[in-house]
Amino acid sequence: MESYKEVGRSVKRVDAYDKVTGRAMFTDDLCPKPCLVAKILHSTIGNGRVVSIDTDEAKKVPGVVGVFTCFDVPDFAYPVAGHPWYADSAAAKRDIADRRLLDDRVRIYGDNIAAVVAEDNVAAERALRLIHVEYEEYPVVYDARESMKGTEVPVQEGKPDNVVAHTLAVTPKEKLGEMGYESVEDALLDPKYHHFAIKTFTGEQSQAHIEVCVSYCYEEGGKIVCVSSTQIPHICRRIIGQALGIPWGSVRVIKPYIGGGFGTKQDIHFEPLNAWLCHQVGGRCVKLELSREECFWDTSGRQPKNFEVEASVGDDMRLHARSIKGWSNTGGYIHHGHALVLNSVNSFRWLYHTCEDAVRCEAWTIHTNGPHTGAMRAYGVPEGVWTAECLMGDIAHDMGWDGVEFRLKNAIAPGYVDEFSPSNTISYRTDGLRACVERGKEIIDWDNKRREYANQAGPIRHGVGVAFMVYKTAVAPFALETSNAQITLNQDGTFQLQMGATEIGQGADTVFCQMAAEAIGVDTEDIHIVSFQDTDVAPYDPGAYASRQTFVSGTACKDAGTKMRKRILELAERLYPDAQGELDLRNHAIYDGGDNRLCGLADLALEAYYNIHKTDQLSTRGQATVHQNAIATGCTFCDLTVDIPLGQVTIDKIVSIQDDGRLINPKLVEQQIHGGMAQGIGFGLSEELLVDPKSGRVRNATLLDYKIPTMMDVPDLIAENVETQDPMGPYGNKAVGETPIISPAPAIRDAILNATGVKFYEMPMTPQRLFEGFKREGLI
Amino acid sequence: MESYKEVGRSVKRVDAYDKVTGRAMFTDDLCPKPCLVAKILHSTIGNGRVVSIDTDEAKKVPGVVGVFTCFDVPDFAYPVAGHPWYADSAAAKRDIADRRLLDDRVRIYGDNIAAVVAEDNVAAERALRLIHVEYEEYPVVYDARESMKGTEVPVQEGKPDNVVAHTLAVTPKEKLGEMGYESVEDALLDPKYHHFAIKTFTGEQSQAHIEVCVSYCYEEGGKIVCVSSTQIPHICRRIIGQALGIPWGSVRVIKPYIGGGFGTKQDIHFEPLNAWLCHQVGGRCVKLELSREECFWDTSGRQPKNFEVEASVGDDMRLHARSIKGWSNTGGYIHHGHALVLNSVNSFRWLYHTCEDAVRCEAWTIHTNGPHTGAMRAYGVPEGVWTAECLMGDIAHDMGWDGVEFRLKNAIAPGYVDEFSPSNTISYRTDGLRACVERGKEIIDWDNKRREYANQAGPIRHGVGVAFMVYKTAVAPFALETSNAQITLNQDGTFQLQMGATEIGQGADTVFCQMAAEAIGVDTEDIHIVSFQDTDVAPYDPGAYASRQTFVSGTACKDAGTKMRKRILELAERLYPDAQGELDLRNHAIYDGGDNRLCGLADLALEAYYNIHKTDQLSTRGQATVHQNAIATGCTFCDLTVDIPLGQVTIDKIVSIQDDGRLINPKLVEQQIHGGMAQGIGFGLSEELLVDPKSGRVRNATLLDYKIPTMMDVPDLIAENVETQDPMGPYGNKAVGETPIISPAPAIRDAILNATGVKFYEMPMTPQRLFEGFKREGLI
Repeated sequence: MESYKEVGRSVKRVDAYDKVTGRAMFTDDLCPKPCLVAKILHSTIGNGRVVSIDTDEAKKVPGVVGVFTCFDVPDFAYPVAGHPWYADSAAAKRDIADRRLLDDRVRIYGDNIAAVVAEDNVAAERALRLIHVEYEEYPVVYDARESMKGTEVPVQEGKPDNVVAHTLAVTPKEKLGEMGYESVEDALLDPKYHHFAIKTFTGEQSQAHIEVCVSYCYEEGGKIVCVSSTQIPHICRRIIGQALGIPWGSVRVIKPYIGGGFGTKQDIHFEPLNAWLCHQVGGRCVKLELSREECFWDTSGRQPKNFEVEASVGDDMRLHARSIKGWSNTGGYIHHGHALVLNSVNSFRWLYHTCEDAVRCEAWTIHTNGPHTGAMRAYGVPEGVWTAECLMGDIAHDMGWDGVEFRLKNAIAPGYVDEFSPSNTISYRTDGLRACVERGKEIIDWDNKRREYANQAGPIRHGVGVAFMVYKTAVAPFALETSNAQITLNQDGTFQLQMGATEIGQGADTVFCQMAAEAIGVDTEDIHIVSFQDTDVAPYDPGAYASRQTFVSGTACKDAGTKMRKRILELAERLYPDAQGELDLRNHAIYDGGDNRLCGLADLALEAYYNIHKTDQLSTRGQATVHQNAIATGCTFCDLTVDIPLGQVTIDKIVSIQDDGRLINPKLVEQQIHGGMAQGIGFGLSEELLVDPKSGRVRNATLLDYKIPTMMDVPDLIAENVETQDPMGPYGNKAVGETPIISPAPAIRDAILNATGVKFYEMPMTPQRLFEGFKREGLI
Repeated sequence: MESYKEVGRSVKRVDAYDKVTGRAMFTDDLCPKPCLVAKILHSTIGNGRVVSIDTDEAKKVPGVVGVFTCFDVPDFAYPVAGHPWYADSAAAKRDIADRRLLDDRVRIYGDNIAAVVAEDNVAAERALRLIHVEYEEYPVVYDARESMKGTEVPVQEGKPDNVVAHTLAVTPKEKLGEMGYESVEDALLDPKYHHFAIKTFTGEQSQAHIEVCVSYCYEEGGKIVCVSSTQIPHICRRIIGQALGIPWGSVRVIKPYIGGGFGTKQDIHFEPLNAWLCHQVGGRCVKLELSREECFWDTSGRQPKNFEVEASVGDDMRLHARSIKGWSNTGGYIHHGHALVLNSVNSFRWLYHTCEDAVRCEAWTIHTNGPHTGAMRAYGVPEGVWTAECLMGDIAHDMGWDGVEFRLKNAIAPGYVDEFSPSNTISYRTDGLRACVERGKEIIDWDNKRREYANQAGPIRHGVGVAFMVYKTAVAPFALETSNAQITLNQDGTFQLQMGATEIGQGADTVFCQMAAEAIGVDTEDIHIVSFQDTDVAPYDPGAYASRQTFVSGTACKDAGTKMRKRILELAERLYPDAQGELDLRNHAIYDGGDNRLCGLADLALEAYYNIHKTDQLSTRGQATVHQNAIATGCTFCDLTVDIPLGQVTIDKIVSIQDDGRLINPKLVEQQIHGGMAQGIGFGLSEELLVDPKSGRVRNATLLDYKIPTMMDVPDLIAENVETQDPMGPYGNKAVGETPIISPAPAIRDAILNATGVKFYEMPMTPQRLFEGFKREGLI
């Protein structure tokens, strides 16, 4: 493995001091006070059309500056997903434009139909209550497969069967022929193999970030300026431009520190409306802050999904054929659309794809009148891995095999190349998975516990479980991966690092400083990062999603650093033309080939800035277009206690071991894994937005009713890494931000199965679902 | 002359809308509210030492957060002048470090000896009144030539005669020998020539900018952040670092819009103290806003100066020899020091230097206990030109010559190279002066008016007057001239322009947009300028002074634009490899050699950002180290009425015609000239800080008592330009920001002389001085 000096150090977070002292400024801290506030009027029906809106009374409320309805807004449809744009308009890679600032077509309960701008929240709320709306109402459909049969009025125009997209990928005919089959179905039903078929469901998890969605807009310098708690400031700029029908260069977006996003803030939900309302009131500063309740149902959670899976497996423990069908309920709007369920079925396939097996993957994304859905941490992968692990767990259980042994027989192995990928850039190059599993087994004491828990009876039972994980870093080759970075030498020999990539709490700023320092050859402490992104001055980068930043943006960062080192040494050569041998930068100084110190870096910086004969403020621009990706893997083991009559699970021990390639900052990686494990436990056991199927209304849009794990629910979390050197990562690194949420839930499911013999297929495994399952299987 | 498309257009100011609507944000607008405020305790003596300070009572005032005295501050002396730094510490070009955050050595009345930080102004003011100070007092000296005799305790340590600097420049011996003389004195006293000798005085003008000096500081991201109304953010960063003894990279300075500076804000008066106080209170936000009164006497106005001049002139109207001696009173601190009086004697020399004459220039800069002095618009030149024009006016008057004809005989002419300049980069390359004079004569109707006003008597008399002007653009070759600029292509085919140079009300942002557009080949409206300078992200540029920005920073701007055009065409070549002929960018599109439109610039920009195969956000960095300068010239003519018994002057008509090279934006140039003429009228007739010589206390530190011209005092101002193409300016341009203040005052003086026959040598020519002069000469 490569040897690094700054990469691999657990340096303190660069934002640690500001964040623990409360000094760090978030969007609402920065918002001028007083300023105007905007509030949104939401529909009280789940499907239909606004016939008329009467705002007369609302406009009379003292303090109200303006009331605007769906009949006032410009007719620009725009996409909201935080995806890069495409130069080629015909490429069909551009996101679907199905949102309007306000819409008279109500597609979901609580749809946005009017907005009030007022001098304070009280006036705005009073005015909202005085707006009278007349609707034409249509029946609500919430079940995706019901919706596919078609509705009288399609949810979105032009899609009579409400299907956004349908894809099918199958092992090529030739290979099937070699296997002796006409189709994957034949391989599945070959009587020489054991056949399994299951159905799974994964619910709508909400990101439940600490900081609500908030932005404020004002006009200045001929631009609309939007300060927003967003993961994707440059994309936000583009989407505001599209939504308002104005040139993108006329929009300026500023991203301060943000208090969590987990994918919600990878959509541009309200910034365009905020910008438009600001313009309607003459460019005065207008703040639009969602309530906690609105965050739950008017932004986008994880798509609920159904899967049907079949598999055939040989006595040699090898998977012979698999088929997955996935149906994703995208709700009334497209947001990230089909990419999510594609990620589910692909990760199902990759994790246990030996390339000797036959595979069939089919997926649908369907409109219903369900709430918004979109990106959430790991972006469809947890749903696919949940499904894969339900299958693997069932097979191991039914065949009496050791679950670890069975999984290892089939798990993705080095040299794997995705045979379905058009460019074959999805390949598994470095394998830490097997070492991860060894270490996990050891920590959880797998073999002994399996024996210990072998024959249990009674209401309280124990079980150990396992789940593997696979995650493809960044979005190439499916989508564009691009990033830019800029480094400038300061007069004191320190550096300014400007990234377009965003710190969203994950520690990005810190690891970028480490990577820049490594490339230049200085200490991390010598790098000052510009933490805010201001699209007027920040290099272009689409932002934080897909665990792409250390991988893609890190490549741009390294490029800028490498160029800076080169520029410094070139300047040193100019200043010391008679120096012997090759010059080197180390210990904050320039050395000649004979190890003589020529000058300090700070002295060189002063020459760069202030030499009377020739100045040269050193500033370098790093750039990356990344076409490769790197597959991160790992596993979770857990040991738990099930109280069968109460339907209660207590996790006694849980450990996640990951191969995320080289770790830029081991402590930060550990913290990421801790957070992901906790969120994964919530995903597995308690977190689900509950939707009334008759109205489409979310029933539990509060932090009281939506159950995120508390300190009481999360045991000590054990997180470790097996380091590998990925050849594609800028410093051998792979994804880490999203990976840890993937395997905890299925590991818990596997432990419950091993403890009780009961198979659960629906997530989250709430006490209600567990109770019903145990009752169904006669344990209660 | 070169042909330009965007340069030369009177485009609307880019900040016009924000400024006229009040939307533009200045420092105090941006300051978080509430925040802590700092107030300064000023000495009540003009010379001495603080023996002790008792702050016990002050600290007890409710709302007081901290009281800090001159005994608490770190012992770092630092320079405050807005000059570039020098890499070479031995070069003696670095400014003298004579300021401390607070100082127990009181050198001027109102010196800064303690500071209070409190929750509001009331608490701070109450606390100030409760601080008890014990002084050791020394006699005050305010007269510079008296001070040169030495004082018991020198004003600054190590300077027993209180002389900061003394310089002497004389026509070389060889040339004097050719002329037949041993010395300039011989040439002056040669009986074949007419001999003249005068003494002049110019008072301390105050900049009287609208926005007071204000800054606020807070700590964030491990840095001290200072938001300040400064002309020189990058220099401010350096000086805060020096004053606090911290690395410069740990300081971040942000400059919003500023409400005038005229040189005051080219000194770093209080930002270091503000930063230090902020750090003392744990990094909380602290605002330090000077009162209007403090702005008058605790920041730096124009140095008062005395000159003694001799000249000999032949019957052929040709100057034969000249000598000037200048004494400049820099007050208790050095600030810009000797550079100012050097500019005076040099401009005296340049304006009427035929290079056939003998010249002797001697200058002293002297410490007294007078108030701070420093840079003010035209930086010593108005004082030198005043002196030159007093001399020329007297000679013409006494010899009975036409003042214009006499001046033209001797005025700087094309091909002039300063024989005293070590590098000979001071040369007069393009001559618009003669055309300016022709046009000025025509507008003022010189010949007719001269005849008309020839023989007047009685208390009310009329006169026409003239003065020429010379101004060297920027600070090369005396000091470093460097600048950087950055241009980035937006997705919509517009551009972000980032300058380190600052908009200080003069219109810099607008002309930079024009220059960038010209270089790229697009419209000015396609350029979005980043108006604020944040030293964390703004390219390095020392800032606004010496009329350097369009000349030096404009060169960097043009360089960035030229590179951007090249990058665009290179990308177009990559996108259209089969295109015929040389590609061109015009009309927002790319054309091939056969005039076929290949694509729009916006399409190309989308390719740059979003091409799936290779992205390349185009961003270019422009750089300039400028070793040349360009001499701007011009003249003012005026026609006025003198009421002799009242000592009152009414300007009936005043016209300034300038050769500022090519005009980037004629309307903005006209506005600059208008502003400069008004300020020049104030300089000539009414503006002077009055200092009590016994205490060193300023007597008229209010806008009531310090007389800037009002609408009533300023007639319609006629401003015109004669355009020339300077080969050194990026677009043929030369200085314009400071030039128009130079010649109005001496033109008024000349008209008074022509109207009354009375010679005035002291500025401003207040009613009191006029009355005394007329009385002395027997007119009253």
